[in-house]
Amino acid sequence: MESEFLHWLRPRLSSHPQLRLGPGDDAAVLRLADRADVVITTDLISDGTDFHYPGCCPRRIGHKALAINLSDLAAMAATPLAVVVTLLLPRIGALGLAQELYLGMIPLAKRFGICIAGGDVNTWDGALAISVTAIGQTTSRDILRRDQARPGDAIIVTGAFGGSILKRHLDVEPRCREALYLNEHYQLHAGLDCSDGLAKDLWRLCQASSVGVILHQQQIPIHDDAQQLAQQTGKTAHEHALGDGEDFELILAVPQDTATRLISEQPLINQLGVPVKLTQIGECIATPEFWIEDESGKLTLQPPLGYEH
Amino acid sequence: MESEFLHWLRPRLSSHPQLRLGPGDDAAVLRLADRADVVITTDLISDGTDFHYPGCCPRRIGHKALAINLSDLAAMAATPLAVVVTLLLPRIGALGLAQELYLGMIPLAKRFGICIAGGDVNTWDGALAISVTAIGQTTSRDILRRDQARPGDAIIVTGAFGGSILKRHLDVEPRCREALYLNEHYQLHAGLDCSDGLAKDLWRLCQASSVGVILHQQQIPIHDDAQQLAQQTGKTAHEHALGDGEDFELILAVPQDTATRLISEQPLINQLGVPVKLTQIGECIATPEFWIEDESGKLTLQPPLGYEH
Repeated sequence: MESEFLHWLRPRLSSHPQLRLGPGDDAAVLRLADRADVVITTDLISDGTDFHYPGCCPRRIGHKALAINLSDLAAMAATPLAVVVTLLLPRIGALGLAQELYLGMIPLAKRFGICIAGGDVNTWDGALAISVTAIGQTTSRDILRRDQARPGDAIIVTGAFGGSILKRHLDVEPRCREALYLNEHYQLHAGLDCSDGLAKDLWRLCQASSVGVILHQQQIPIHDDAQQLAQQTGKTAHEHALGDGEDFELILAVPQDTATRLISEQPLINQLGVPVKLTQIGECIATPEFWIEDESGKLTLQPPLGYEH
Repeated sequence: MESEFLHWLRPRLSSHPQLRLGPGDDAAVLRLADRADVVITTDLISDGTDFHYPGCCPRRIGHKALAINLSDLAAMAATPLAVVVTLLLPRIGALGLAQELYLGMIPLAKRFGICIAGGDVNTWDGALAISVTAIGQTTSRDILRRDQARPGDAIIVTGAFGGSILKRHLDVEPRCREALYLNEHYQLHAGLDCSDGLAKDLWRLCQASSVGVILHQQQIPIHDDAQQLAQQTGKTAHEHALGDGEDFELILAVPQDTATRLISEQPLINQLGVPVKLTQIGECIATPEFWIEDESGKLTLQPPLGYEH
């Protein structure tokens, strides 16, 4: 089915001014911007772990496979450029499924101005898995690493957390533009995207930077979905906001004066014209410990929470 | 198991002068050579299609997953630079299997001077699959495409063909150095690597270039494995050489005078000091047809052979 699929796919792929050679040869060739470096990341999603197929729409699965990789480029404040896509498809209905997956990816690729530069299509007796590798390029502000947070830095997050599993975990909206805008206009020390849960990913940033953190529980922006999920699970909405995964929001460590400006200026508006709220949820400390401050001001030393692959 | 695996892996990975940021952040960062472009390719292998696990050594599976991607960079005459590796592992024994796969990849990466820049490790209830994305860079001679063969060009191949399934299909030796050497020192018009069978891949080169070909059956270098396999299958060794896949030799279209020089000079020696024979097996023609000339000089119009994914 590969040749039939490629025949269907090629006219649907956009050209790109930096794509010198697209699908059809042994490899694709991309030209970077002047003085840019290659930023590369890869992430796979599979049936049973990241989605259930059949049971959810393959276009949304395709969207997610691409979006989570763009989210990793956002976490680096890299400009997205291209992706290559590898499909591992159940034999029965493979062609139609491949088409639906791409119909979920193509609009997202267009919106983010990237090209689908190549890929690989495979069928087998197993279940569905999709592996995407995303290529970005550095900007003149260079990359945003996760290991440069300093004691005294404020922790800032985009959006709200928790309960993504209820309905939005497939509809990831990568924070590429937001990260690029913030990195260009403000002094950011460190950052990552939150995929495995706020507490766990924040702790990763701290560990990489050899700092600790005090997290103000009352300041964590709770997603409506976390409130709703809490009514079903018996856990609190705060627990969901801290422990659930797949929010794909940015977690940033910035100097406190930058944080004050960010919170007051609220400069982010997403592609759809909707404001993306920035919230300060904590501060970095010199001791490598994870503290949570509750509503009464009581500090509790926390073990990291979240999801282990 | 991901964090345990990464703890095991990191000290085993080599640094690389062009790897600015390796595994551990949301993405890796690579610096290209001056005026180089990014060459990117991806290829997945899966249990049941490309290997049988258990049943063959996971180090050889890891080697193959990496080698076939390097072979695609060879096909572009690109300098290999880095790979990212995505593992999809059966849950039981995942850690040990991941380690063995990497122990197959690391020596090959070292031999070819590339870095393993990042990756993704996943477990699931399904079977084993490995997806690799390889990044190369263009040289001052630029890339070798498959669509630039011209009528009158000679078809040159490296090595010998057929019967790889007998024992060597996992032990792929990518022709990176050979392709780079030939592209630097000779005028090559077009090329690709032979993964799906000599006839099928040669026909792909012809179709991409809008040419046809006359293939001289008696000149096709037959691998010993093809002879041996023919004794078991009842097919001829020539049929195996033409139709079997996974030889991962180069198929090149070059001007006839270059071909004459190549055949006489035989400039290729592989990493182990063993000569890699170049053989002329045919010529491109203007009409888009695939002809085979047998030992008696009789020409037969051929449908393309080979393996459909």
